[in-house]
Formats: sequence, C-alpha cells, structure tokens
Amino acid sequence: MIRTIFKFYNYYISKDKNFTRKLRPLLGFTPANLKIFKLAFSHKSTSSEKAYAMQNNERLEYLGDAVLGTIVAEYLFKKYPGKNEGFLTKMRSKIVKRKALNKIGDKMGLDVLLNEYNQTRLSRSMLGNAVEALVGAVYLEKGYTGTREFVIQKVLRNYVDVHELETVDDNYKSQLLEWCQKNGRSVSYKLLARYKFEKRDRFKVAVVINGKKMATADDYNKKSAEQTASEKAMQALGILIDD
Amino acid sequence: MIRTIFKFYNYYISKDKNFTRKLRPLLGFTPANLKIFKLAFSHKSTSSEKAYAMQNNERLEYLGDAVLGTIVAEYLFKKYPGKNEGFLTKMRSKIVKRKALNKIGDKMGLDVLLNEYNQTRLSRSMLGNAVEALVGAVYLEKGYTGTREFVIQKVLRNYVDVHELETVDDNYKSQLLEWCQKNGRSVSYKLLARYKFEKRDRFKVAVVINGKKMATADDYNKKSAEQTASEKAMQALGILIDD
Repeated sequence: MIRTIFKFYNYYISKDKNFTRKLRPLLGFTPANLKIFKLAFSHKSTSSEKAYAMQNNERLEYLGDAVLGTIVAEYLFKKYPGKNEGFLTKMRSKIVKRKALNKIGDKMGLDVLLNEYNQTRLSRSMLGNAVEALVGAVYLEKGYTGTREFVIQKVLRNYVDVHELETVDDNYKSQLLEWCQKNGRSVSYKLLARYKFEKRDRFKVAVVINGKKMATADDYNKKSAEQTASEKAMQALGILIDD
Repeated sequence: MIRTIFKFYNYYISKDKNFTRKLRPLLGFTPANLKIFKLAFSHKSTSSEKAYAMQNNERLEYLGDAVLGTIVAEYLFKKYPGKNEGFLTKMRSKIVKRKALNKIGDKMGLDVLLNEYNQTRLSRSMLGNAVEALVGAVYLEKGYTGTREFVIQKVLRNYVDVHELETVDDNYKSQLLEWCQKNGRSVSYKLLARYKFEKRDRFKVAVVINGKKMATADDYNKKSAEQTASEKAMQALGILIDD
C-alpha cells in the first residue's frame, strides 16, 4: 500500500519535473506556480464537466491576449518614435493576429506541452491560444515588467522578424485580383460615399465581383478602404484562410 | 523689450500652472512631463503641417487604448474569478467601447482641457480619444502599476458602475425587433450552418429583414450568434449610433 502511494506520488513528481524542465528554456525562469502553467496548456474540450468549466485555459487566454497586445503596442511605440498610429496598429496586427500566433506557438514547440495536458487532437489555433494563455500565466506570476521581459526576450527576439514584417505588404487588393483572374471573375471598386468626419475626408468603398457587391469598408484613405474591403471579400469568399 | 519677454514668459508659466491645477485632481498626482500631457489633448486637426504629424494625440491614443484594455481586462479577471472568458470579454467591451469612453471623458470634464489645446470644435469621439491619450500619457510617466492605480482609482471607481453594467443587457435582438415592428418590417433568423470547430458545435446564422439577408454571424452558441448578427444588421441599417 505504502509502496503504491509512493509510486503514485513519484509519478506525479517526475511528471512535474519533466514539465518544468521543458518550460524553463521557453520562459527564461523556473515557474513557481506550476498549476497555472499546466492550466495554460489545458484545452476546453479536455475538461468536459460543467463544474470544471473554469479549469481550462480560456480565462488565461483572455488575460494573455490583452497583456501581449499591450506589450507589443508599447514595444512598437518605442521602437518607431517617428511612425504614426496607422503604421503602429498595422504592425501590431501583423505580430499578434491569429495566424502569426499559431506560427509562434509552433516554433516555440508548444505542441509538446499541449499533448501532455490534452486528450484531444491538436489544431493550429490551439497553438496560438496556448501562446496567449502562456503569456497570461507568466503575467500572473511575474507581473507586467517580468512579462514584458519574457515577451521581448523569449518571444519577439526569437520568433518574430519585425524588420521583415515592415516590408510584408498585406496587399489584399492584388491577392484578390489574382484570384479573380484565375477563377474567371471580374473585380472592380466603387466609391459609395465621400464624407467629412472630424474635419477629415472619409471614403466608403465597395468591392464588386461579377457585378455583385461583395463587401464595403470605410477609411480616411481610399486605398486603405479598398484594401480592407478586399480583405473582407476574401473572407466572405472563403479564400483567406487564417491559420 | 525685457518687459515683453517677461510678460510672454509669465503668460506661458501661468498657463502651465493652470493646466497642472486642472490635471492634478483628475490624475491623483502632479504630472512631471507636462509636454506629454499637453500632447494628449492636442487633436490631429490642430496640427495641420506634415512636419507636425507626430505632434498630436494619435500615438498616445494607440498606446493608451492598449494599456487601458489590459488594465480593465486584469481588473475584471480578478474581480470575477468564477466567470468565463465570454462574460469577461463582454464586460470589458461594455467599459472600453467608444460610446462608454466618450461618456467617461465627458464626466471627467476633459472638454475643458481639449478646448485649451485645440482650435477645432469638439466632437463626442474626441472625448473618448482623450481618455485613451490621457491613459497613454500616464503610462509614459508612471509605468504599468502607476497607470493601473490611476485607472482603477480615478476612472473606474469614479465613473464606471461595474455592477450596473453586469445587468445591462446589450439585447440587440429585442432592439432590432422593436425597430422592425415600429417601421413595419418583418424580421426572422435563419440557421445557415451548424458545424464542428475544435470539437465544439458552432452555428452560423443570418438575420433576415423583409426577406433580405441583412447580416450573418458565427458563434458557439446560437443565441449569441443571433445577437451578433442583429447588432451587425443594426449597424448596416444605421440605427446603432455609437457615440
């Protein structure tokens, strides 16, 4: 009996040790509250009972999503003192959008940790969610300054090429045009309205495919409105798969 | 000549003193870097020259928007340990959405400070933007912990009734129904698809007004999808004015 308890105890101790060993190089520190970090890798579908509704990573994702967004916002704000809000917002979205987070989670090897605490088959989006939940867990343990250090040193520096992102052009207009040409459809843009908002010109445009209005968008800049409308149209057409 | 310089100097000194006097009760501390706080109240249209593109509050708004979102996210995370991510996200949006921020800026009396540093006529949305820019300015001066204290003590406690927000139901379905009845239009909901996503049921619904599909939305919960679709339809109909 005592031997069984001992074995049982030993099994969990060594599982924890193993988990810590895997986490340490990712985090740059040894986590104190292992429970929170285990939770970060527990997907909703694993805890099916209602009573355990809180025992999954969704609350941590919610927190980590906000914290990560702010750390990246601040990082870019300081890195680019001469750039305007539009540039900063776009760059931030390139770093923290779902697709990018999934890639980061993949490169960090979070699949190994997710497999440890889940019975379900992994999906791409679980990787990005785990990045957010991990940031949430780090935040609860280290606070804002410690989490900023973790995100900048261990995530951005290792897995994000900010300078490359500057030049990546999310050119949805040209992507949509290419797709339409390949699929024998016509595409054009229509200016629906031009109006003043807070003393600045604002444009409402529609993207029209085969004579049908597919999507509309508003912006202070006509080109930007066309880009956004193109992105929406691609989403509606199901040709913009974000993971 | 010396008297003119003195008068000029005195004018700016007393203007600064006056500004500080107005800011102190709002902030709960005496700002050290006045320049940043003045910038928070300088609207884009005031600085028209291209060289001055950075001399307005848009970069501060970008930073403050992120910081405020995280502080509110964390505040709710800790206030409601038993609530799930859906509830927390909804509550957060009720606090930081444009309309709510405009109200907060109004209650804080930011119009007085905006008038001091702007030649343009105030709009409602400038009030909300100023709240964000002010949070950005506080962040640059005080860091995360100091800003959290400011936001919780000086903004949330004074101007946001969190418990009231819990019960406020953004019931777009009933609002839309009421509007349709008043305007002699029919409204119905159509389930377009039910599919599995990450092992969970997901629903795509459309809201149909006078036989025309007005908007669609996806959610894990059919009711929530209908709410979101209703909100989108109200936006499309121009009957959801957000300021």
